[in-house]
Order: sequence, then C-alpha cells, then structure tokens
Amino acid sequence: MSAFSGVFPYLVSPVKPDGQVDRAVLARLTEHLIGRGVHGLVPLGSTGEFAYLSAAQREEVVRTVIDTARGRVPVIAGVASTTIRDAQEQTQRYCELGADGILAVLEAYFPLQDSGVESYFRAIAAAARNKPVVLYTNPQFQRSDLSLPVIERLSHVENIRYIKDASTNTGRLLSIIERTRGRMEVFSASAHIPACVMLIGGVGWMAGPACIVPKQSIALYEAARAGDWETAMTLQRPLWRINEIFARYSIAGCIKTALQLQGFEVGEPLPPQQPLDERARQEIAAVLASVDALNA
Amino acid sequence: MSAFSGVFPYLVSPVKPDGQVDRAVLARLTEHLIGRGVHGLVPLGSTGEFAYLSAAQREEVVRTVIDTARGRVPVIAGVASTTIRDAQEQTQRYCELGADGILAVLEAYFPLQDSGVESYFRAIAAAARNKPVVLYTNPQFQRSDLSLPVIERLSHVENIRYIKDASTNTGRLLSIIERTRGRMEVFSASAHIPACVMLIGGVGWMAGPACIVPKQSIALYEAARAGDWETAMTLQRPLWRINEIFARYSIAGCIKTALQLQGFEVGEPLPPQQPLDERARQEIAAVLASVDALNA
Amino acid sequence: MSAFSGVFPYLVSPVKPDGQVDRAVLARLTEHLIGRGVHGLVPLGSTGEFAYLSAAQREEVVRTVIDTARGRVPVIAGVASTTIRDAQEQTQRYCELGADGILAVLEAYFPLQDSGVESYFRAIAAAARNKPVVLYTNPQFQRSDLSLPVIERLSHVENIRYIKDASTNTGRLLSIIERTRGRMEVFSASAHIPACVMLIGGVGWMAGPACIVPKQSIALYEAARAGDWETAMTLQRPLWRINEIFARYSIAGCIKTALQLQGFEVGEPLPPQQPLDERARQEIAAVLASVDALNA
Amino acid sequence: MSAFSGVFPYLVSPVKPDGQVDRAVLARLTEHLIGRGVHGLVPLGSTGEFAYLSAAQREEVVRTVIDTARGRVPVIAGVASTTIRDAQEQTQRYCELGADGILAVLEAYFPLQDSGVESYFRAIAAAARNKPVVLYTNPQFQRSDLSLPVIERLSHVENIRYIKDASTNTGRLLSIIERTRGRMEVFSASAHIPACVMLIGGVGWMAGPACIVPKQSIALYEAARAGDWETAMTLQRPLWRINEIFARYSIAGCIKTALQLQGFEVGEPLPPQQPLDERARQEIAAVLASVDALNA
Repeated sequence: MSAFSGVFPYLVSPVKPDGQVDRAVLARLTEHLIGRGVHGLVPLGSTGEFAYLSAAQREEVVRTVIDTARGRVPVIAGVASTTIRDAQEQTQRYCELGADGILAVLEAYFPLQDSGVESYFRAIAAAARNKPVVLYTNPQFQRSDLSLPVIERLSHVENIRYIKDASTNTGRLLSIIERTRGRMEVFSASAHIPACVMLIGGVGWMAGPACIVPKQSIALYEAARAGDWETAMTLQRPLWRINEIFARYSIAGCIKTALQLQGFEVGEPLPPQQPLDERARQEIAAVLASVDALNA
Repeated sequence: MSAFSGVFPYLVSPVKPDGQVDRAVLARLTEHLIGRGVHGLVPLGSTGEFAYLSAAQREEVVRTVIDTARGRVPVIAGVASTTIRDAQEQTQRYCELGADGILAVLEAYFPLQDSGVESYFRAIAAAARNKPVVLYTNPQFQRSDLSLPVIERLSHVENIRYIKDASTNTGRLLSIIERTRGRMEVFSASAHIPACVMLIGGVGWMAGPACIVPKQSIALYEAARAGDWETAMTLQRPLWRINEIFARYSIAGCIKTALQLQGFEVGEPLPPQQPLDERARQEIAAVLASVDALNA
Repeated sequence: MSAFSGVFPYLVSPVKPDGQVDRAVLARLTEHLIGRGVHGLVPLGSTGEFAYLSAAQREEVVRTVIDTARGRVPVIAGVASTTIRDAQEQTQRYCELGADGILAVLEAYFPLQDSGVESYFRAIAAAARNKPVVLYTNPQFQRSDLSLPVIERLSHVENIRYIKDASTNTGRLLSIIERTRGRMEVFSASAHIPACVMLIGGVGWMAGPACIVPKQSIALYEAARAGDWETAMTLQRPLWRINEIFARYSIAGCIKTALQLQGFEVGEPLPPQQPLDERARQEIAAVLASVDALNA
Repeated sequence: MSAFSGVFPYLVSPVKPDGQVDRAVLARLTEHLIGRGVHGLVPLGSTGEFAYLSAAQREEVVRTVIDTARGRVPVIAGVASTTIRDAQEQTQRYCELGADGILAVLEAYFPLQDSGVESYFRAIAAAARNKPVVLYTNPQFQRSDLSLPVIERLSHVENIRYIKDASTNTGRLLSIIERTRGRMEVFSASAHIPACVMLIGGVGWMAGPACIVPKQSIALYEAARAGDWETAMTLQRPLWRINEIFARYSIAGCIKTALQLQGFEVGEPLPPQQPLDERARQEIAAVLASVDALNA
C-alpha cells in the first residue's frame, strides 16, 4: 500500500442546471491542482457536497477525477451512507473505477451504538480489500461520532490506515495519535490549524480550502515537514483567514464562490442550499487577495 | 381534497435478510391495522426507517401498503431527501402509485437558511399537485428545522394542509395552531401527549406507537374527539408508558420488537442499527402486557 | 402542611439604582396580586433574578413579600445555591422570616452526578423541617438536571411535595405524575401550556407571566379546575401570547417591562442584563392590549 | 505593568470539614510550586472551585497564597460573579490584598447580549486600575461566551492584557491572536495542547494540571520558548495524559486526588460534588507514575 501524506484538497462538485456533472470544469480544476503540486485529491468530501448528489452524479465525479489524474497523484474517493450495503457498493464501484483509497463517512439518522458504528467502518474496509481507508469523523454535520475506543479498535484493521477528524478539538487528535501510533496516521481538517497538527505528528491535511490556495498550502506543508516551524507559522498566519471564511460561509458555498473568483465556473452550492450574497462574495474576494490567491 | 384526522400509525418497514421488502408481513400488518379501525396509514415515517432504505425498497413499501389498503383508509407516503430534485421524484412516484397524501421530511447535511427550507417544501407541494402535504419537523433527528415564520408562510400554500411536529415542545404546537388557523391542521407526534394535543386543537396523531396499540389509540381519540376529557385521560395515562419506551428504545427497534412480541415477523431494526437486547425486550413486553396489548 | 394549588406568580425583584430593594413598589405589587386573587406568591424564582441579587437583597425581597402578605396567601421563597451549606442557611433564614414553603433551585458550575443532586435537595428539605419544598428544575438555565429516578427518590421525602419543571417537555410532566402519584404534585412552568398541565393532573402554575395577567390566569385556572375545558381553552389561546413574549424577551426583562407599562415602577432587568429596546417594548404593549391587560 | 508568561498553575482550594480554608496545606502547596519554578500562581480558577466557596472563603484563599508567595512570583486572583457590583468588590478587595493581576470570569444565569458581556469585563478592568486583567472564557461551564468581536473591543482597554480560552477549539486562539496582536497575549488552557498554543504565539498556560506536574510543565515551556519543538513534543506527548484525565475526572476532583497521592492533604472536591471512586484514583495514580509525578 502506498503511503499518503501532504496536501489533499477536497474537490467541489460542479453540476450543470440540467443535473449533469460538469466534467469539463472538474477536469480543468483537477489538472490545475495537480499542476500546482498537490499530493492527492479527494472527490466527495463534505466540500464535494456528497449529501446533495445522486448515486450517478457521485460516480461521475469520481470517474472524472480519476480519469483526469491518470495516476499522477492518488485519488481518494468519498463513500458516505447510512447503510452498510450501500456503503459497500459505493466502495466497490469506486475501487473498480481506479480510486487509490476510500474516505469513509458514516451518515446517521438515528443515534447509533458504538458497535453499529464500528461494523459500518469495518464493512467498508472489507469492501476496499487492499486499498487504504481514511476514517472521516465530523461531529458538526454527522449525527454519530467515532469515539476514541472505536477508533483504537478500528486502527487494528489492516487497511484502515488514516483518520481525518473534522472536530475543532485539536487535543483529540493528539489523543488519537498516542493511541494508534504505527497503525494509523492523522490528517488535519480545515477546523484545525495545519501547522499545529503537523507539529503533533500529523501527515498532512484533507480540506476544502486547499482547493483555492494549493500553492500556499504546499509551501506551508513543506516548511512543517522540514521542521522549519518559524517559516511554517509565517505562512500559516495569513492562511488561517481562509479557514475562518470557510467556517463562516457554508463550506461548499465558500469554496465554489472562491473558485468562481479565480476563474473556475463551478457554479453555486447545490439546492436547497442558497448562493452566497454579494457581501460574502466581497469578503471572500478580499481574503483571497490578502493571500495573493485571487488568481489561481 | 379529503380531510385527514384521527390515528395514523407510522408503519415499520420489514426487510428480509436478502434486502427484499417483506411484502407479506407488511400486508398482514396493514390489514390488521385497518381491521382495528385506524383512520389512515403512513409508510416511511421515522419509524419506517426511510433513512435506511434504498429508493427501490422505499417504493416497494409504499406500493405494498397502497395495494393492501385498496382505498379503505388514506395512505400518506413519506418523502425524505436532502435535495429538491430527488424529493420531487419521490413525490411524483408515490402519487402515481396512488398515495392520498405526502408526508414531507427535509434531511440536511449542511445547515440551511430559512429560504432554502421553504423552497424545499414548496417544491414538494408543487409536485404533489392537488394532493395534501403534511409537513414533518423533527429537530431531534434532522439537522434543519421549520421555524415559525417559515411554517406560517408555507401554510398559505394551497395543498400544504397539515403539520406533524416531533419536537417535545407542546407549546410550540399551540403557537403553530394560533398562527395557521383555517389553513393548516396539527397532528401530534409520539413525543407529545395526544390528549393534550387534541385539547389545544390537534386533529389526531401520526406516530409509531399507534402500530402496537391501535385499538387503545382509537378509543383515546374518540373520547377526546367527543370532548370527554376524563375518559381520555383515563385512557391516556397507561398509554403514555408506550411513548416512554418508544423514546427510550430507539424508535424503530422498539416498534419492531413489540410487533414481534405480537406475532408479526417484521425483523430487526435495519443495520447498522443493532437489535435490542433481552432486557429491553422484556421491558417492552411488560409495558405491552400492562396495557393489554401483548396480543395484537 | 397546607396544600398548595392554583396561580402562584413569580415576583420580580425591583432594585433601586443604589442597590436597595425597592420595598414600596414590591409591596404594592404584592398587594395588587393578592387583591386580584392569586393563590400564592413566589419571590426569588428565575423571574425574580435571584442570580443577580446579593444575600442581603434576597432576604429583603423575601421579608417584604411576607410582611405584605400577612398570611393572606402562602409565600414560597426561592432558595438557590451551588452549595449545600449556603442553601441550608437560606432555607433556615427564609423559614424564620415566615415563608410557608421553599422553592429549591440547584445552581451548578461543574456537572454533578445524580447522587450529588439528590443530596442537595435532601439537605434543603431537612433544613425546611416541616415546611413543604417545591423542586424546581430548569434545564434551560441550570447546568444540572433532575432525572426521573432522582425525582422519584426525592418524592419519598416527607416534605418534598411539589415540583415545577421548566423544561418545554410536557410529556416529562406526565412521566413525573405517573411515578410520584400521591406523594408529589406538579406545577406548570411558563414553558408549558397551563391548560394541558391541568388536564394531565397538575395543580396550578408557578410562573412569571402570572404577574401581569393575574385575573386572566385565575379565570383559566378556575375553568380547568371545574373541568370546563372548552372555556379553559377559550381563555388559554390568547394568554399563550404572553408566554411567547416571555420566552422571547429574556424573562425578567419582559415582566419588568410589562409591569412598567401597567404602572408599576419596578425598574429594568438587573445588570449586566440590558434593558429591552423600544421595539420589544411595543410588542409587549401590543400583546398586553390584546388580552386586555394594559391596565393592571 | 509586569508581563506575565510561563506556567501558572490553577491552585486547588483545600477546605476543612468545618468550612475553614486549610491555610497550612495551601501554603505548603504554594511554597512547593514556587520551589519547583512556576512563573506565577492563580488562586480561584475553575480548579479552585470558586463556584463552591463563600466570599469569605475566597478571600482567605487569595490572602493565603499572596502571603505565602511574598512577591516571589505574581499572584493572579480569580474574580467570578454574575453581577458587576460584586465583581468590582472582589477585584478591589483582591487588589488591596496584594494580587498582581485579576483573572476575570463571568458567571451567567440568563443569556446575555454582547453589550452586557462587554460591560462586565470593562467594569472589572476599571476596578483593577493599573493591574493587568486576564479574560477567562470557558464555554463548557459558563453560560455566556466572549465572542471574537467583544474580545477585539476589550483588547483596546489599557489593562486588559491577556486571555485564557478554555474551549477545546485551538483555531479560535489563532483567530484571537491575529486580531489582538500587540495588545493582548494568549494563555493556553488545559483543553489545548500547550506546545501547539506556544507554536502559534501563546505565552504560557494557566491550568489545573500544572499543579501536579510543575517540573515537567516548566521543562516543556522552556523547550517551546527556545524554539526547540522536537524536545517540546517529546515532553508534551506523555504529559497530554494528564490533561486527558483532568477532562475525564471532574477537574477539581482530579487535581485534589492527584495532590493527595503526592502527599498534599487537600481534601475532596467540595460538596455537592462527590469524591472520585477507587477506580478513578487508581487511573490517576497510574498516569502520574507514567510521567514520574507520583512524588511531587
């Protein structure tokens, strides 16, 4: 199994008014990010609005990214469902399409016991066979949560190799790292400060903001990787403003708006989400300008 | 448009190990409840585990109930989605199958603004054409909520005629009733005391527990309808224990277990939900016995 | 022990700019409410802003109300603390001053286990000796909560005779009533619909709004008490608007503003709470006018 | 004004069964921590159980620490109240006693608007005159919160110089630092990873755990201060276990139990909090042993 590390942008999902995935603009964005040097790509994260796409649309998004990437960087496809059966089918399908790994998300309607949560992720890992699985936990948007004991047990599954924790609680990441050392690696989410996560032992970040500041994200990653924390923090400070607007302006809406400003016609957040208003658009433009990212 | 009122059980969704909907047991349950005198039936409410069924399974559940009911009582089919497009397709399909009304549920992943929430329900009402729509709001399991101003605006849509509020806040129901009088009627959910909701002007209840105590529910409804509040409360007191175990034992798990005890082989809650343990089973049996409902 | 039932307004605590309790206006309000026929009075509930008063101010409020009431109606004094020692001292002091009962509130900073919660209320009951204690639980403002098992155990304490539950969950009241029948009576809080609570077996209500609509509250109580539920609901519907503004406009701020409009110079909510703005004042005036309560 | 930085333990408050502050053991603990090299001391933080002490007990705690410290390290006294008047009196009294700074905590019962929150902290700063004030925000235990705009406004008050944020959200600290640079410094709380907070520009930490691992905390601080992040993380990893048990075992209960194990007879957490059970005691002992801290 290959080892993942570095900057993995969560891609947006551009959809045309008729419901067709806009393959052209998604391919152009994919090409652009690879050109900028990102270490991998993640279609169908939260930023990819998986919750607002049909099964066919999801598959088209994954296929487009894999076809465009042509193996130059690993593609980790997001799998999200409430049921084991559906999650396994998504996993198998995306692996057949050539995904290099699976980002596993548990959607829930009723509260679940730990044993139910654990069985869901084990089933995805089984369906992924020898491909690595990234656990994804986001207590902000999901109704279930991966508890520390469940994470520890899952870390003993051969191909569950990574976790991306999207809580805002950075201390929880250190608790995870200390309990799973040698078996599982941690990626930062946009709610954490990447430089801090790298300091405590993280191996990179998977996040929407990296879509719009790939060059700056990679520079920060390289500095942290090299142990040059002074440079890392000098790069980190202004970049944090990107994470702040991402949290304030509804995730996908923020990134799609920013990409529009950079010349990518990715459209608006999918309905019934509403487009951002002019004031939000202006604040996003100002923040992009402040980190020299108005031109992609 | 027909007027809905009375006891509308939320049906469970029996699914065989191979993933096929168990039409036979669902038909038997439907027949049984009609025989007991329920005023309507609601497939695909929360108790119906819509969140754990595929599109095909959902359709099969709705078809089975409609085919079995043969017009003897109205069937209100649950529509639930994150997207307008999918919700409209479900609505049209269920109306074609012969549903007499639509129970409209908004699932959400990202928080939505009021305008997005409103557009979702308006779109379902449009797709339902001349059939009545029941708004369903459940802040406990859904990430969005219908605010009072949105409910008031939606009550002016011609065929949005009912609301079922599954919060535990009974005062909120009176606020809704006072704001929508003459345009919208209120059904109680299992988290409210039906006798109280009838007192303040409700027209019945849509809830999972009615599946297992249909006879007792109808007696309570008739007493309240007749203004015989003393009898209503005499019936209500012991029945409240059913609602208490429903809240304690994971909704679908509770009703499926109770139905098994009554001789309906409806199976277990759908995975990754876990079956109830023996202790829960015994408590449910004891409560059923206490209201003379161990035999359906 | 006397039996409490009926309408028990939570009194506001008027404090002059120099920090002195305004005995004159508090006495005038007390006299007014007794004249209107209320069944009891409760100084130092939430509406009484106990959390913003010093020990001396609290005592002065209690003394003023008892001195003015002169035994015409029972006075139940609010005791609130984080510690057992302080709660017992308050209890003993208010009993010495002549309080007819104690409303017991647990303030908490750290989360408490059930055993800690139980010991707190038992200690107050012991300090109150033969005077009745009303348990007060308000999950909205307090960090601890009285669980059903704790309430059931406390109901076996001889002089713990009442409970006022300020959650919005009316079903919880029925669960309490069913578990404590014959040992404990339930009072409605402002977040419940009084007519509903009376229907399920409540004996009255303790709430801030009764300060500003005493006459209307008593009429509603009498109708419910007589089992005339149609009249009760006719009275209840418009009165619910009072509860709605009470919830919207910061409790003490709402009642103090309404009393000012009625001619009682009770001042503003205590700092650092801010006075209501003009728009709120106008809405409160409009609601008062709509239930014929602009003139006290 | 002196500049505060480094390790500032939150002291526990030992109280004898008769309610007297145990001056002897508090003095011994104070002496011990100064001997270990801490940079300052904070009586009456959350760990100091201020919410469970009378005004007289609080004053005695502050006096004992100041008298023992004799100016060798700064003493920052915790002020906590719901009202401005009381907070100002505490502030003046502790300044007269010789406190070198004030840790300002807002307790709340009702929700407060930003303007009310701001006025509270401004009033404490005014009462502290030329002594520095540390803002303390703990959304976990307090009902109000300091929003970013309020923090930014307060940072312009001359002697509001520090903030201690006890949320678990480390990103929020970076947002604060970026908005208040040059006017306000940030201390880490126990819920953050101190090494991370130092990396992003923090100046130290104020926290209960430093009471039981002062030597190890200072070594970590020195490494971080010197920019030796590799050593800092080597020291940080095992120490994080102390923060984990602190969060798990009710704060004051954890630190008092740990201090008992180290030979300080500080007693149990104040009632109605319950003492920790034997299993918790053993886990705490095991964690202390693992960082070589069983002997103070």
